[in-house]
Amino acid sequence: MNARLETSSESVAGSAANLLSVLRADPPLVQCITNAVVTGFTANVLLALGAAPAMVDITGEAGGFAAIASGVLVNLGTPTPEQRAAMREAVGGAGTAGTPWVLDPVAVGALPVRTALAHDLLALRPTVIRGNASEILALAGRTLGGRGVDALDGTEAAADAARELAGRTGGAVAVSGPVDLVVDADTEIRIANGDALLTRVTGGGCALGAVMAAFLGAARQTGDTPLIAASAATLVYTVAAEDAARGAARPGSFAVRLLDALAAVQPSELAARAHVDAVRAVAA
Amino acid sequence: MNARLETSSESVAGSAANLLSVLRADPPLVQCITNAVVTGFTANVLLALGAAPAMVDITGEAGGFAAIASGVLVNLGTPTPEQRAAMREAVGGAGTAGTPWVLDPVAVGALPVRTALAHDLLALRPTVIRGNASEILALAGRTLGGRGVDALDGTEAAADAARELAGRTGGAVAVSGPVDLVVDADTEIRIANGDALLTRVTGGGCALGAVMAAFLGAARQTGDTPLIAASAATLVYTVAAEDAARGAARPGSFAVRLLDALAAVQPSELAARAHVDAVRAVAA
Amino acid sequence: MNARLETSSESVAGSAANLLSVLRADPPLVQCITNAVVTGFTANVLLALGAAPAMVDITGEAGGFAAIASGVLVNLGTPTPEQRAAMREAVGGAGTAGTPWVLDPVAVGALPVRTALAHDLLALRPTVIRGNASEILALAGRTLGGRGVDALDGTEAAADAARELAGRTGGAVAVSGPVDLVVDADTEIRIANGDALLTRVTGGGCALGAVMAAFLGAARQTGDTPLIAASAATLVYTVAAEDAARGAARPGSFAVRLLDALAAVQPSELAARAHVDAVRAVAA
Repeated sequence: MNARLETSSESVAGSAANLLSVLRADPPLVQCITNAVVTGFTANVLLALGAAPAMVDITGEAGGFAAIASGVLVNLGTPTPEQRAAMREAVGGAGTAGTPWVLDPVAVGALPVRTALAHDLLALRPTVIRGNASEILALAGRTLGGRGVDALDGTEAAADAARELAGRTGGAVAVSGPVDLVVDADTEIRIANGDALLTRVTGGGCALGAVMAAFLGAARQTGDTPLIAASAATLVYTVAAEDAARGAARPGSFAVRLLDALAAVQPSELAARAHVDAVRAVAA
Repeated sequence: MNARLETSSESVAGSAANLLSVLRADPPLVQCITNAVVTGFTANVLLALGAAPAMVDITGEAGGFAAIASGVLVNLGTPTPEQRAAMREAVGGAGTAGTPWVLDPVAVGALPVRTALAHDLLALRPTVIRGNASEILALAGRTLGGRGVDALDGTEAAADAARELAGRTGGAVAVSGPVDLVVDADTEIRIANGDALLTRVTGGGCALGAVMAAFLGAARQTGDTPLIAASAATLVYTVAAEDAARGAARPGSFAVRLLDALAAVQPSELAARAHVDAVRAVAA
Repeated sequence: MNARLETSSESVAGSAANLLSVLRADPPLVQCITNAVVTGFTANVLLALGAAPAMVDITGEAGGFAAIASGVLVNLGTPTPEQRAAMREAVGGAGTAGTPWVLDPVAVGALPVRTALAHDLLALRPTVIRGNASEILALAGRTLGGRGVDALDGTEAAADAARELAGRTGGAVAVSGPVDLVVDADTEIRIANGDALLTRVTGGGCALGAVMAAFLGAARQTGDTPLIAASAATLVYTVAAEDAARGAARPGSFAVRLLDALAAVQPSELAARAHVDAVRAVAA
């Protein structure tokens, strides 16, 4: 049973505009412990947007840096032993210092080493979890029964799992797909911006996790919730993707233009362009 | 002594067209264990083409994943100890499951750690070996005597070595150069498409190895041989390179346009554009 | 107290033109042990310029390769344990063989593991040290007292520290900023070319370190000093950045065009475009 609530399309877009302004005025320092495939693209996304990336992912440095960073991304895409140890150190440092952090459990459920790590990190209560529907379902321990997630209706297939995870962490959970879904324990926000070309560029999803960490950093100044920060990050990123796709029908050009668009997107244009819907979700 | 055989320019282009269609209709899952320099570009090449990259390169995951992947790339460009162990695991998993795999022995012969590893992996009979003439010669244990490979006529200098390696593995060997040469134990295919700008972009050759793994995956559905799969991959990739080079005389733009061209290249245009020659090669 | 000396704007630009010609005629082999974020971009910068990159960064290979490389870059951006050991090996090999090498002490002072490593490597006398003002100050052991480096006047804040470091190594020290400063024990060269977009692309500074290693390689043929090689690298790189920025106001396009511009920049245009000033610096 759902009901309209104070978090409306307008308020999400308004918060996104405000957070983007704050981010550019005072660039958050975003620690990224991320996979080897997307490090360069992720750093470029953050730089283009106006944030300050720092890929501090070795033991002996990751924990101390997480304590002073504005936000931390932990992405499990290619988790070497050294990086796994650094992730635990960073999450420990973030927890002690109160630094918000994002968990992106890439391919959780399908591969054993990262699956075990993802569950350990989940218990440490990430501020935001970001993944696709399959990953969110796997992290919540849900089986899909006889049919795979691809047979289901995109992100909606993972809505219950996302809400359950949010209940366990006390934070927000973002499910990426044609319509992005961001939830916390009692609110669901759907964002229908973006472009399918994001799935044809490696790091299209992973970099969004870093952008969420940047917006969580900005939200420490505004007091916005993880739900709003993650939604704002998604909105800004997917609006930029729409700009990038305009006139670039192919993935190589699109990736270049996405960086350009992230540098160009203005707080003032978000309200008119947002396709956002927010509802209160009452657990069954 | 050579003689024309049933593998003709027309049949290679026709097989390439069919394999490209199969690849796009049912994207092969391509496991890449590759070097740190080219991971992002390689994943983007596969995504642009229509395949599904997965950079699973840690121990504890690499072997199990190789068993379910459509094809595997093992590229020795920056082989850390962890990655070397993961490569052995992946090749073991691929062997048990019958997953085709590509060995790209980057800089073999020049550097000791990878040279030892390359010879170990060679004994496990890669489905396809891809390298430049110098690497193929080194892997075959041939010395160049008084003059280096650069003094010789490109890929032709390695034709005998390639055929010998193919005889040992029972698979195919691809020698990249101005004219690409792909051989198995008794056939030689030469592909004269492509553009010199491929040598001005890092990963220009490495990504072709990943494309070969993708085509090997598609060939599991069509029954095409490794020779045909590797030749088809080379043809599609080098035709796309020609498209990319048209109007982009410089390496930065070329790399972006190569991704665009890989997404755009159509099966129906390959026959008219192929510069392919196939001959039966009889050992002296 | 400063005085004009024989190293003039004209002589720096002339040496840069000559070194660029030498580099393209006989591409230096540049070993890069660099951070995971910028490996691909760094290799593409070197390839575009006309040099030959080789990312040999594992133990058992790094030392032997440094002995035959034309120049070596050691960049501390993401120094894993394996890479740290490879760096020590490479610097040892370079020292024995007389191969010039560049130290880029990324984030030294702020993070403990790399700070200890940077000081160890400093004692081995890098041919060139490249960093921003904050890093150069930290490496020289200077504290900033009550105010941070951002409050000071860019690279000038680190001029004394740079000169002191150069005195200790006997080489050159380059401080990147809006005006680039390159010093050795008794000369200061200021280069006012470039574009602020370099700071919006990851690897914008790191890749310059690799270009310096390439120019040091070329300087082995011309006999130019490390001061001149590092200044020449800076001039060529920042002139190319100006070309890239013309018509590309955003970071994604700029990075692509920077590679194009590095491939296009001509020795003959450097003299007219250089904004270089050279003075003799007499220690207080």
